[in-house]
Amino acid sequence: MAKTKAPRRPRAETPKGFRDYFGAEVTARKAMLDTIARVYHRYGFDPLETSAVETVEALGKFLPDVDRPNAGVFAWQEGEEDGRGDWLALRYDLTAPLARVAAQYRNDLPSPYRRYAMGPVWRNEKPGPGRFRQFYQCDADTVGSGSVAADAEICAMLADVFEALGLAGDYVVRINNRKVLNGVMEVAGILDPSNPEKFAHERGIVLRAIDKLDRLGADGVRALLGEGRRDESGDFTKGAGLSETRAEVVLAFVAARRDTGAETARVLRGLVGGSKIGMDGVDELEEIAALLDAQGYGPDRIIIDPSVVRGLGYYTGPVYEAELTFEILDDKGRKRQFGSVAGGGRYDDLVKRFTGQAVPATGVSIGVDRLLAALAARGQAQEAAQGPVVVTVMDRTRMADYQAMASDLRRAGIRAEVYLGNPKNFGNQLKYADKRGAPVAIIQGEDEAARGVVQIKDLVLGAKIAENATLEEWKARPAQQEVAREDLVGAVQRILDGPT
Amino acid sequence: MAKTKAPRRPRAETPKGFRDYFGAEVTARKAMLDTIARVYHRYGFDPLETSAVETVEALGKFLPDVDRPNAGVFAWQEGEEDGRGDWLALRYDLTAPLARVAAQYRNDLPSPYRRYAMGPVWRNEKPGPGRFRQFYQCDADTVGSGSVAADAEICAMLADVFEALGLAGDYVVRINNRKVLNGVMEVAGILDPSNPEKFAHERGIVLRAIDKLDRLGADGVRALLGEGRRDESGDFTKGAGLSETRAEVVLAFVAARRDTGAETARVLRGLVGGSKIGMDGVDELEEIAALLDAQGYGPDRIIIDPSVVRGLGYYTGPVYEAELTFEILDDKGRKRQFGSVAGGGRYDDLVKRFTGQAVPATGVSIGVDRLLAALAARGQAQEAAQGPVVVTVMDRTRMADYQAMASDLRRAGIRAEVYLGNPKNFGNQLKYADKRGAPVAIIQGEDEAARGVVQIKDLVLGAKIAENATLEEWKARPAQQEVAREDLVGAVQRILDGPT
Repeated sequence: MAKTKAPRRPRAETPKGFRDYFGAEVTARKAMLDTIARVYHRYGFDPLETSAVETVEALGKFLPDVDRPNAGVFAWQEGEEDGRGDWLALRYDLTAPLARVAAQYRNDLPSPYRRYAMGPVWRNEKPGPGRFRQFYQCDADTVGSGSVAADAEICAMLADVFEALGLAGDYVVRINNRKVLNGVMEVAGILDPSNPEKFAHERGIVLRAIDKLDRLGADGVRALLGEGRRDESGDFTKGAGLSETRAEVVLAFVAARRDTGAETARVLRGLVGGSKIGMDGVDELEEIAALLDAQGYGPDRIIIDPSVVRGLGYYTGPVYEAELTFEILDDKGRKRQFGSVAGGGRYDDLVKRFTGQAVPATGVSIGVDRLLAALAARGQAQEAAQGPVVVTVMDRTRMADYQAMASDLRRAGIRAEVYLGNPKNFGNQLKYADKRGAPVAIIQGEDEAARGVVQIKDLVLGAKIAENATLEEWKARPAQQEVAREDLVGAVQRILDGPT
Repeated sequence: MAKTKAPRRPRAETPKGFRDYFGAEVTARKAMLDTIARVYHRYGFDPLETSAVETVEALGKFLPDVDRPNAGVFAWQEGEEDGRGDWLALRYDLTAPLARVAAQYRNDLPSPYRRYAMGPVWRNEKPGPGRFRQFYQCDADTVGSGSVAADAEICAMLADVFEALGLAGDYVVRINNRKVLNGVMEVAGILDPSNPEKFAHERGIVLRAIDKLDRLGADGVRALLGEGRRDESGDFTKGAGLSETRAEVVLAFVAARRDTGAETARVLRGLVGGSKIGMDGVDELEEIAALLDAQGYGPDRIIIDPSVVRGLGYYTGPVYEAELTFEILDDKGRKRQFGSVAGGGRYDDLVKRFTGQAVPATGVSIGVDRLLAALAARGQAQEAAQGPVVVTVMDRTRMADYQAMASDLRRAGIRAEVYLGNPKNFGNQLKYADKRGAPVAIIQGEDEAARGVVQIKDLVLGAKIAENATLEEWKARPAQQEVAREDLVGAVQRILDGPT
């Protein structure tokens, strides 16, 4: 750039797909994470905080999610002098770093290792409305236990999380098992273990079809399992090409949910008949249901439900998903259930990448931002943090006095601040107090100072009066009182304790 | 890679310069951040959480720290289809994102805007022992106030933070002012405002010399201000080339600290004599001292000290630094003061980069990891989180009973878990409980189940006995008691309530 050319000013913009969180947005999330952490802790899970950065090698380059093969990571190469530095990347979830940690510290960690982790993850995806490239996850995993008691425990813990968040009666945890679907496919003759690539491909088509049950209904899924389906717009989606009989077996599996785990297991057992892996899967579901029953988690809270598909391609045994069952209005004003806010399952092969040894593991990830949105939709979000008491500045040479007032209030545990802008225009100070959500403003001019008093303005009451008061009433300003300087803290406390 | 070649296993390694935090390391930091946030909140500061990623353009490419011009950021280019995507980078501090936010939302934010932020930042530097490329910062800044009352407030808040952390009597906040040094340089004839490049260069040499006062003493600094200094190893550092008289003025400035702010201001006033900017600086220091005095922050807690240099090159007015005054033993077993754990000051030009308008701002950054190390060195670190009660598994067909025991304990608020490893070897279960720091283990075999009782093993007491007990005493296992199954929770609670 030539020296004479004035440098262009940088744009003050959040990068595309990222966002900033202010005030109550930060504290509401923190309160939620604190509540979840308390439940995780009580179950014996220990916190783990890995760095945001991992080697691409340790991370694996892509998301292990068949639905989004193009999903990527933010990555860069280390600038070593020989030009061959490591490739580093931001973690895309909290599971991949756990797998690395479980392998790296395998001789030091307790086994089984129960850990929880909470923090941002990053996805190098095309941003969209409400879809951000940095978001929070909150995971709990048990590494080193092959027992389905570990899966049952995480489902129970998930239920406890929702209860702790005040969502009793408004959630259900649904459990399925990948082995049962494998058994169903074996029985239906879909599974061809001798050709893994073909198998994975066809399984993918079947899974994606099942996953659309909610949206398309049984007929839509039947079409996708068979020849294919033409949607309202006329677009045609090629199907899995299953015969009608085979498609019906898959559909029967998906519809196998009954009122209790025991009944559902009976239906599934009939479907997977001669398949060893299928029977294993049903046994596991039965055991999970029995464990949860013994602890009092009935089917109103946790239920075996074969229509849960999410992540079946990724997991190796039990999978679970939590959804919120209350209704909200969507963008078009239609009622719909809020839906899934957490999911997980058993993934026995992740650590094996590093060590060659299979290490059984199971865990759940809570979608923190979705859960926050749910609480907000229910009006259960934490109220906006109350603004501070604002001490106004009438005489800038007496700043020390104003600071001392704020200081006194703080010592009594009251949030307080002195106005630090240009004090010339008093109206600006009150506008500022309003913008800060201040409950109270303190005023002390020359006259008040001489008499050793302060004016206390109840802004909450003042706003209420202003809403429907005559000019006379408003002028009378009953929301303002004069008290002795030494009574400042007590008088403010009384207003804050309200009822105003 | 040829298909026949087995793929190399990825290394399970934290990237160079990064680290993992386990258990109590995570909770101790969280407890500290929570305490700091409470103080910041009480002062009317609002939380802000920006994303980890910023555009390089918004961030500025390098750290604004003259001492480390090579310090860099982790950056990468967005993969736009036209190959000209934005350059993005991880934030290297919390101030640059604040400047971007203050510019971006300038019409919506209250003014002045008090905000706090806490979270990791990243530096692309050569890692070293104890020097990591990701670390926590915890900042509070006031944007939009030119009043030194804002600086005084942040110093008072910093003192309150240390008190809240239990460090009363063990810290001092030291305040200096960049304008006073400018005045001193003007008076000493060092400053040549007509040649900004020469000025910046020479100021840098003088600042670096002053900054070595602690280590080299007055004579060492005098040499560095003059011709230069040869150290013990024979290496020669070129000096600033000041005449002796001029060097003495600088040294007198550095040594101007007296017992009270008022006295120090008097000394400084003598030194900056005819310099307008110098006198302004002294006025500001006096005002800050008076404000703090009025709120009861005496020179034992906050003191005007012209030897504070840190960041003087970067800041535009008051600068402040907090240090811990207790002694610790260094690596070589020598006593030394723990030193600086927080610093900040006024930087009126940061927002101007974006908008062209100068916006006054002042703020502090607490070095969270150093402060944690200080608390640990003092033995004031939070104790390791207590391990969970471990319910052992004697009979794997009765897993539901064991889960129900853990569940009962949790409902009473007691951290508890069932052993989920292979239960075959009971010794392994007790080793696991030990590794988990479990205070209590629960045991129920076939016999106990038949009789409706459980064995409760007090592991803390057991360890104490094992330390100095005879074999007979140890065998008698007085640390183990049998209670009825329905008394499990009460009996465990009594052990946890201790004293054992």
